[in-house]
Amino acid sequence: MTHDGHDPIEPWIRKNARPLATTRIFTLEEQHWHCPSDASRSGDFAVIDSPDWVNVFAITPDREIVLVEQFRFGVGINSLETPGGIVDRDENPAVTAARELREETGFTGDEPVFIGALSANAAILNNRFHTYVIENAINDAQQNLDEHEQIRVVTKPLTEIPSLIGRGQIHHSVIVAAYALFEIWRAGND
Amino acid sequence: MTHDGHDPIEPWIRKNARPLATTRIFTLEEQHWHCPSDASRSGDFAVIDSPDWVNVFAITPDREIVLVEQFRFGVGINSLETPGGIVDRDENPAVTAARELREETGFTGDEPVFIGALSANAAILNNRFHTYVIENAINDAQQNLDEHEQIRVVTKPLTEIPSLIGRGQIHHSVIVAAYALFEIWRAGND
Repeated sequence: MTHDGHDPIEPWIRKNARPLATTRIFTLEEQHWHCPSDASRSGDFAVIDSPDWVNVFAITPDREIVLVEQFRFGVGINSLETPGGIVDRDENPAVTAARELREETGFTGDEPVFIGALSANAAILNNRFHTYVIENAINDAQQNLDEHEQIRVVTKPLTEIPSLIGRGQIHHSVIVAAYALFEIWRAGND
Repeated sequence: MTHDGHDPIEPWIRKNARPLATTRIFTLEEQHWHCPSDASRSGDFAVIDSPDWVNVFAITPDREIVLVEQFRFGVGINSLETPGGIVDRDENPAVTAARELREETGFTGDEPVFIGALSANAAILNNRFHTYVIENAINDAQQNLDEHEQIRVVTKPLTEIPSLIGRGQIHHSVIVAAYALFEIWRAGND
């Protein structure tokens, strides 16, 4: 079928999936999909099956954001990020948000406010990440890190986020995408 | 080693990597890393080895952005995105940007202007994506799609991007992150 570039896009149908590899945090699958209107069109696609993630814009009473710096094994360099992590099975993502903030930074604050969810990567991952704002964040607890976590906690004025992105200190796409949600949410709440 | 949450984060060192699975577009590896200052700390981490990606904010003379809607096998739903794709071996990403715009949409325009690069996903992917702006984009060529591509081309006023994200029509994190770069770049060029 030739697609003329203007017709509605027809969802394909997944026929089956087989695991190629399983890691601690996700399973890589080969999925077979076919086009419902044209049986001659089908293909195998690599999709990563992953639990959802959360991240948190935790804001102190003096309008600073709580950030974590950690070494990231994907890119092999340090990365400055909003706190976050993997949603445990049957866990409400809002609970994950408050839990990860407390565990990674020792900060706690108001009830998490949901500001949006995005596809982690629509092409190759099947999960979403949920972004929350926690206001009135204060450092009144202890860090409680996982086995491989080494985390440096820093606070920065909210107004510095664009320059932290522009200078390449915040470079993880999920965090930058969450920042776009945060700005859109703020613009709607002005 | 207990980390107190404030010391500088020390980069770990990669000892070796073994492929777990290879797909058309990336290789999943298990990489063994260790902490240089503490031989007792080491771990295996799943990292996806991938070529870099690009995406393009192509802007028409009447300040509309050129978008592509396609079915995404990762999330199994349609996704509205800026055009983009994988940088071919030895290809300059600016060339990829103009090529993908032309192939996916039939639009061409001015020379691509680089506005930033981010980690595709600092935790699990080793690649970056490069974002370009192409001004004066006009529809003067033919779409030229890959085997599995079905793409609907739409143009929208630039001012509608936040609401397209807020309503969940643009939901791919890479595209939303690129939009943050675009807004930061625009603010610096005002």
